[in-house]
Amino acid sequence: MNFLQIVSIPQAIELLLGINGEVWSARERVRAADSVGRIAASDHLAASALPPFSRSTVDGFAVQSSDTFGASEQAPTLLRLCGAVQMGCEAKTDVAAGGAALIPTGGMLPEGADAVVMKEYCEQLAQDWVSVGRAVSPRENTVLCGEDAAAGEVILARGARIGARTAAVLAACGLEETTVQIRPRIALISTGDELVEPGSALAPGCIYDCNSTALEALCAEQDLQVCSVQRTGDSLPDLKEALLRAADSEMVLISGGSSAGAKDYTVRALEEIPDGDVLAHGLAAKPGKPTIVGRLGRVPVIGLPGHPAAAMMVFSEVAAAYWRRRRQSADTRRRLTVRLSEDVHASPGRQVMLLARLFPRENALWAEPVHSKSSHIRTMQQADGYLCIPPEQEGLRQGQLSEMILF
Amino acid sequence: MNFLQIVSIPQAIELLLGINGEVWSARERVRAADSVGRIAASDHLAASALPPFSRSTVDGFAVQSSDTFGASEQAPTLLRLCGAVQMGCEAKTDVAAGGAALIPTGGMLPEGADAVVMKEYCEQLAQDWVSVGRAVSPRENTVLCGEDAAAGEVILARGARIGARTAAVLAACGLEETTVQIRPRIALISTGDELVEPGSALAPGCIYDCNSTALEALCAEQDLQVCSVQRTGDSLPDLKEALLRAADSEMVLISGGSSAGAKDYTVRALEEIPDGDVLAHGLAAKPGKPTIVGRLGRVPVIGLPGHPAAAMMVFSEVAAAYWRRRRQSADTRRRLTVRLSEDVHASPGRQVMLLARLFPRENALWAEPVHSKSSHIRTMQQADGYLCIPPEQEGLRQGQLSEMILF
Repeated sequence: MNFLQIVSIPQAIELLLGINGEVWSARERVRAADSVGRIAASDHLAASALPPFSRSTVDGFAVQSSDTFGASEQAPTLLRLCGAVQMGCEAKTDVAAGGAALIPTGGMLPEGADAVVMKEYCEQLAQDWVSVGRAVSPRENTVLCGEDAAAGEVILARGARIGARTAAVLAACGLEETTVQIRPRIALISTGDELVEPGSALAPGCIYDCNSTALEALCAEQDLQVCSVQRTGDSLPDLKEALLRAADSEMVLISGGSSAGAKDYTVRALEEIPDGDVLAHGLAAKPGKPTIVGRLGRVPVIGLPGHPAAAMMVFSEVAAAYWRRRRQSADTRRRLTVRLSEDVHASPGRQVMLLARLFPRENALWAEPVHSKSSHIRTMQQADGYLCIPPEQEGLRQGQLSEMILF
Repeated sequence: MNFLQIVSIPQAIELLLGINGEVWSARERVRAADSVGRIAASDHLAASALPPFSRSTVDGFAVQSSDTFGASEQAPTLLRLCGAVQMGCEAKTDVAAGGAALIPTGGMLPEGADAVVMKEYCEQLAQDWVSVGRAVSPRENTVLCGEDAAAGEVILARGARIGARTAAVLAACGLEETTVQIRPRIALISTGDELVEPGSALAPGCIYDCNSTALEALCAEQDLQVCSVQRTGDSLPDLKEALLRAADSEMVLISGGSSAGAKDYTVRALEEIPDGDVLAHGLAAKPGKPTIVGRLGRVPVIGLPGHPAAAMMVFSEVAAAYWRRRRQSADTRRRLTVRLSEDVHASPGRQVMLLARLFPRENALWAEPVHSKSSHIRTMQQADGYLCIPPEQEGLRQGQLSEMILF
């Protein structure tokens, strides 16, 4: 295969950013509970301190802790009951020296009190006296105003992926909505004379197109929105037409037709479209060599390999990485350092992405490569992720440590 | 606090299954690309073999491998070109002994051929002769019909959570749709005089209700659908009314009001409703002790602690586990064995769930507990998951191994 210009994965990402590297600023507001999986479009600040007032963490009596010093079951301290805090109300009673106020879990700590004695250690006596059988230290059984978050503190940073726990924090700080990035719209084109839409009858020599489905599912995982799916045969005019129809998107992903054979038309199609161009042909990656970086005006176009596993790997390493840069979003893929169960061959000058399964042995995590031909698809189901062997690395030996990226 | 009957986490799950343990069979069909995150409602079989015919994995010449034995660059073998395979078509040429057919990557292997020589090692000569400069072994550069999946093989098992890679396999096997479980409908009730809806003004002594948002987000992560969200003050009639309104669901989650204080009305509300009942009050878990297992007819009701971190933990350990059982779905939470960065106290007889952060040290994964008061919420954001210390376990020492469940 003759490739025009082979680039590394980082170079491919830079070329794409050169086509359009603008910070992605399109935003919309959604309910906090609906924002899980979305990417924050702005820093979100706590609208109020969390908690908004100092609270008791137990049912008991709010006191001045110094009044309890030395108190014990054998020698309780007597304090005068000066009131009761109601849940959801301002604490109206001040607790002076020698005083105590009944307080429920979550109740507002009254002025003057600096600790709470659990009710299990207290006894309410006649004539408004409370016997306290245990000493408490300052701040014991309380949570102070702003201890969890100060008013104005950043509770969700721009670019962060929102999870259930963050949604809870947003609500706790009074935010019912979140400003999230509108999902960039991705146009998909699957090419190949052999491709048939799933659900249709399969003619001899044909296979089902699975790249459209695979890429749409991967886009969803990355908070990207597929706006159109087209299938074309190996035909230059059809591919050009499909490209022009896809140009009203934020990225075009073509799968198949990216190699250098007689029927690989992606390079020619991009070159023949007036404002189209090819910036690289060939990726220093295994799998993933037949990859094209191109453009339609300011819309980045990636020609992905036709083999599904390779297309998915290049999507993850190049397309997703490009969007992380434009969305100023951190790479939250989980990475583990694992030991290899067998020798692994490197491919000098190319980044190797090798499907692997995790298994525990001797209190360590090991990775076993999932052996696969490039056209296999189900092997991806059997893998927990992939080993990433950088281009400069030599082969890895059994027992050696390597980084694994989890699916 | 006086609890009626304290049960372990497994006992709580069994009690809930006793209320309604029927296999969840409600199903719907969705596009394969839209099925990511859903749970399969039936075994999905490959509609056709994958690949549906034996294919070449390279551009080259389909041959009988025995014809090439002994061939080398210095001593090539001459074969007669007997045709060309077209992409997406049936291979019309048979390859007899001494013959070779031009074949593209993905093309159908012709009858008679059992291997493909890459075109880089061949030269097409005049008068339909091909010089083959390399020996190939049987099946070399091919993928055989059904090698990836046999027709009728299970490619997605009932109960499995569908990911992007599985969606790709479904499409590759010709399935454009997936039969997934309809999401069970969960009714949420947040109780507490102090609770204010996020986005509203905060009166003194009040806090924002974050449990509704937290639980709705957690339900979404578990492929459960929140069908209603209600907020009530600490009022027995209001809570009873809310419960009756929530009874048209598959599970009711009440947060707050689950302890044994004067204003904790969940137990009484469940007992006073004609077909309601309390089956357990108190969970042998830390956090999570103030948990109620009850029912409204055949609808399971869980009274969750009011503290958000505790409510979320009990949701994960009890509610999600219950639905995994009814949905016959595997626990796909990722678990790691980690070393502890410090001593950890156990709580004899209670399962301890301790928020923790992962960090790498000396080529191993360590976990550092995230110290937190029970009312803290943001500490959950800082954790990567939680350590699970079983009730029978004593405290853990620094450096000891423990299981951690990742968020």
